[in-house]
Amino acid sequence: MASVFEMPYQVPFFQADNKHQMTLPSMLSLALQVSSLHSKSLGRSDQFVFETYGLVWVVTAYDVTIHRFPVYDEAITIKTVAYAYNKYLCYRTIELLDEKGEVLVFMEATFALINFETRKISPVPEALIAPYQSEAIKRMKRGERLPTLEGATAYPLVIDYFDLDLNNHVTNHKYVDFFYRHLDMAFLERHSPKRLLLYYHKELRAKDKAEHLVKQEGLTTFHEIRSSKGLHTQAKIEWREDELQGLFD
Amino acid sequence: MASVFEMPYQVPFFQADNKHQMTLPSMLSLALQVSSLHSKSLGRSDQFVFETYGLVWVVTAYDVTIHRFPVYDEAITIKTVAYAYNKYLCYRTIELLDEKGEVLVFMEATFALINFETRKISPVPEALIAPYQSEAIKRMKRGERLPTLEGATAYPLVIDYFDLDLNNHVTNHKYVDFFYRHLDMAFLERHSPKRLLLYYHKELRAKDKAEHLVKQEGLTTFHEIRSSKGLHTQAKIEWREDELQGLFD
Repeated sequence: MASVFEMPYQVPFFQADNKHQMTLPSMLSLALQVSSLHSKSLGRSDQFVFETYGLVWVVTAYDVTIHRFPVYDEAITIKTVAYAYNKYLCYRTIELLDEKGEVLVFMEATFALINFETRKISPVPEALIAPYQSEAIKRMKRGERLPTLEGATAYPLVIDYFDLDLNNHVTNHKYVDFFYRHLDMAFLERHSPKRLLLYYHKELRAKDKAEHLVKQEGLTTFHEIRSSKGLHTQAKIEWREDELQGLFD
Repeated sequence: MASVFEMPYQVPFFQADNKHQMTLPSMLSLALQVSSLHSKSLGRSDQFVFETYGLVWVVTAYDVTIHRFPVYDEAITIKTVAYAYNKYLCYRTIELLDEKGEVLVFMEATFALINFETRKISPVPEALIAPYQSEAIKRMKRGERLPTLEGATAYPLVIDYFDLDLNNHVTNHKYVDFFYRHLDMAFLERHSPKRLLLYYHKELRAKDKAEHLVKQEGLTTFHEIRSSKGLHTQAKIEWREDELQGLFD
């Protein structure tokens, strides 16, 4: 039986948008935070993993389904299970639950370990993963494939100092900020994401001259971050019209 | 004796920069979060204040002195005291303390109440402020005056969706992101702020066509956000050279 970690949480002001909804980047930050706390509770803190193995965790994919957004000041529970792993990848679910235990947001995150020096992916050490009691699986889970974008609009990507994290590369949740940046503000004011599919292929550093490609098809937007090094990030966001209308009239 | 509120805190991954230091915007977010929790503990939650008086809190100024940055995963204590108020303004200190009780960061925040509908500043209702046991003072505290910038470089300010908060205006801590945006990345990699002085004069909305003025004089940078409505924000940041060198070579 895989180890489960839960914690109560209350959505702070700085994680809510102008609809009072918890923002998508904040949910990704929270997913990482709770994963890290879970690991620490099992004696597998980031520091331990780094000092013992020279490895650091990176996320390679998120699949997020939003049934309802947690709102400002709402008391929620975060529940995470590191449920399976194979030679290179570890799979974890993170759920945000309301006070009745209903699932508001369901996230699946795929993690890998990279060697801090070489930046190469490492096989998952058995001794590292043991305390999670995750199921060992042979196959690689195949997520939905995203098409290479054609006919997309390209914008130069500006990387700011605060986009970088401890690994000195663009941090996971900031990509969602990038994706929102070139969507129409009037569209964002009346629509909210119901699903985000996000793949991290290659890390992005401050010096990379990258561009952001965007394509919208009805209520679906597709995003790519590319540089001369190739494809860094791919995403698809499915949107729904907000029920609350007239807030910005 | 003014009411004191304390809480333990551990710096999460998403609030640390590539130097492992807690970011300045995160400190401002945290200052608001702890102020809000303090108020709630006294029966003066944001919701209560809004429903009872039709008022919302806004910050008008921050004066932040950083002796040492809290670092990733460091266990700190946050301590806040709403120590004084006059007819229109409330003064609060927020301190970040290390495990030995040493002050790492000292913040002074000035708050005002505005009418949510008219956006006009309101006198502080006695019944609202009573539980804080703050000292009633007559005078307005005068902060250090910042000069109007001359010979500064101007950049158009791009306001993104996630820069907005519940009040549908640019949220407090995002201004610091703006200030960093047009400083040289090589400078930011080798210097950290030791003091931030920040004045919010006028709120900024997504539709405002604003610009960001920057001027650097040695280890001091000056910042203004201006639009056709006038001066929105003014700041001065004093920097020190980081002791840790060669991290990015």
